[in-house]
This record gives sequence, structure tokens and C-alpha cells, in this order.
Amino acid sequence: MLFDFAKTPPEQRYKLLVGLVTPRPIALVSTRGRDGVVNAAPFSFFNVFSEDPAVLALGIDGREDGSPKDTARNIRETGCFVVNLVDEAIAAAMNICATELPPHVSELPYAGLTAAPCAVIDQPRLAEAPVSLECRLMQIVVLPGGRDLMLGTIVALHARDGILDDRLNVDPQRYKSVGRLYGPWYARLGDRFRLDRKPAEEVMKG
Amino acid sequence: MLFDFAKTPPEQRYKLLVGLVTPRPIALVSTRGRDGVVNAAPFSFFNVFSEDPAVLALGIDGREDGSPKDTARNIRETGCFVVNLVDEAIAAAMNICATELPPHVSELPYAGLTAAPCAVIDQPRLAEAPVSLECRLMQIVVLPGGRDLMLGTIVALHARDGILDDRLNVDPQRYKSVGRLYGPWYARLGDRFRLDRKPAEEVMKG
Repeated sequence: MLFDFAKTPPEQRYKLLVGLVTPRPIALVSTRGRDGVVNAAPFSFFNVFSEDPAVLALGIDGREDGSPKDTARNIRETGCFVVNLVDEAIAAAMNICATELPPHVSELPYAGLTAAPCAVIDQPRLAEAPVSLECRLMQIVVLPGGRDLMLGTIVALHARDGILDDRLNVDPQRYKSVGRLYGPWYARLGDRFRLDRKPAEEVMKG
Repeated sequence: MLFDFAKTPPEQRYKLLVGLVTPRPIALVSTRGRDGVVNAAPFSFFNVFSEDPAVLALGIDGREDGSPKDTARNIRETGCFVVNLVDEAIAAAMNICATELPPHVSELPYAGLTAAPCAVIDQPRLAEAPVSLECRLMQIVVLPGGRDLMLGTIVALHARDGILDDRLNVDPQRYKSVGRLYGPWYARLGDRFRLDRKPAEEVMKG
């Protein structure tokens, strides 16, 4: 099946892309606005892109009425944000944070989440998150359709005790991250498999 | 555990970020260079970020010796590339494409993959891939450390017959995408679960 995107309506493009570009990591972004309200919202147009400097990207669209989402407004106003990663333990809370509440209303009490201080930036992280990445806004690439591609420099990382060993290896029994699929669907990482790389000489020998 | 990234060496930052920002979708990027050689290489610093226009991002670092990877060179030279998505059926082939072969040597015959023509751009897609996204280079954001963040406009999408129904819903029995973890580890999407969103009124009633 071929879809020429010049002739494919945006809603269909969205459905195809979120259905097929899977699994996506989830950023539960926490910010505090000028009004002092702590906002938390999940995004899966998200990934890490570099480690030196450490850079992540976050794609944020507007609300259905065209106004900016609280997250985008807060990042523009403060220049800082926290990306909290999502494991099975906080997946239901993350889903409550996806509710479009009125501005100036925090999702945290409804989701059972609590704000904790950051180490480097003046923004709240989520105490219940397995991992939190403190970010400074590096650049906003405004995409042609108006969506913001926020590039953040990661300045600090918090990891829950026990999920990393002394050599910084992740313990998959203690860190069960969740992948985003589409619609109401998410994926657990229960079923892992390994593929070892071979040296070039061996590959070329066939 | 707190990691202040100003005091964390890049190799440790990399290990932390790829270990914790999971699962990542995989882009098996196919390009043809000026020499006519078809190159294929996998990247997991990748995601879709917008549907109108349809935009994806790809983070590409250099080779270990500092020279550009074939993929980055070909994209810069031609302004076009194809992102092929990876399912269980082509995971082993994708892993072979991760081998750092000499320039001007195609990974395809070693991986058992074949090039097929695109519909809109003059670049090869991979016939065996479940999904291929034809992309035109929109912008390169050169990150401070030298890594290229390639933004591509998706101009066409190919989906293998049978993975989408008439309403463009994905059939999870026929499209088994693979998520990237870290080191030699990958994740199957065997274990799915659903979280339905509630209306704001219901959430705020508690």
C-alpha cells in the first residue's frame, strides 16, 4: 500500500505515523509556570539525540482550540523543564496527566504524583518517576505547521535507587519502562531478545 | 542517584541515556550515494515529531575515526533518504546493517535485503521492510558536539499489504515492530495493555 502524503489528509497521516513508528519512549514533562502551578503532561514525539552534549527533543502541538499547551508555554517562559520517564508503576498516573485540564489547574493531585526539587534547574521533577532528566531549553525549531520541536540540553539525571548497578547497567527487573503505541495502547518490555554485532570481516566473509 | 552531567563523562552519559530512554523506535535508513552504492544503517536516536507537515528526526554521529557515516554523507549529497521501519522479520538483517563496513561497500547483500524504487523521491527503499517512509531533507540542526540532527519531511509511506485494515488500524499480529533498548538488547511488543483517557470532569471529580 502506498500513501502519497501530498494527497493524504493530516488526520490519516497522524494515524499512520503513530500506528507504525512504534514503540516510542514516553516523556512525562513537568514544569512550573509563572502562576506557580506545577504541570505534568506526557509526550511520545520524544527521544534522546546526543550525549555530548546530552540533547533530547520533544514535539509539542497546540491544544485543540489552537492555544499553546501549558507545557509549551511554561518552557518558553522559564527556559527549563524536566522529562520524567515512565515505568509500569506510574503508567496510570501518566495517563491521568494526559487529560486536558483547564490552565492553572495542576494534574499532580489527580494523578497522585508529587513534585520534588531539582538539583541544577529551578523546576519540579516528579518524585515517583523512576528517572528524571533536568533540561535547559537549547533551541526551539518551529516546524512549518506550527508545532514546536523543543531541543533541551540535559544537565542532570536522577535515577531511582536500585535500577542501576555499579557499572551503570540497567536492571530490567527493577526498571520496567513502558512504550507508547497508539490510541489507548501501550507496550510492556517483558519480552527481550539479544542480537550481537559481528566484526566487519566476519560479515563480509558471509 | 543523581548524575550532574557537568561532571559525568560522555561515555557514561551515553550509557545512562540509551539504557533508560527506552524503548526507542528503529530507523533502518537506506540511501544511495554518488558512487551508486546503496547503504543501509540503523539508528534509534529517531522519532516522528509532526504530521502536518509530516516530520521525523534522525540523530547521526560520526564514525569512530571522526569521518561522516555513509548515511549522513549521502543525505547531505542527495537531500533525500528513506526510513525503513523494523519488525521481527528483518531484525537480524538490521543488525547486520549495523556493521561498520568500508565506504563504497553495500550492506544489502550481506543482510539479504534488496533495494526497491521509491514513488516520489529518487532513493532506494528496502523491499523487505514492513514500512518505508520516503523523506526529503528539511533541515539539519548541527548540535554543538557535531552530531547531525536531520529533520526530514515525509512525502510518502509504503506499508506491506495486510498490516493495515480499511480504517488504517494496525494489525498487531501482522506488524510486530521491534524496540531498541541498549547494548545487544531489543524488545518485542508481545505484551500490550490499554489505558483509556477519561474526560476532564471525571478526573477532577476524583
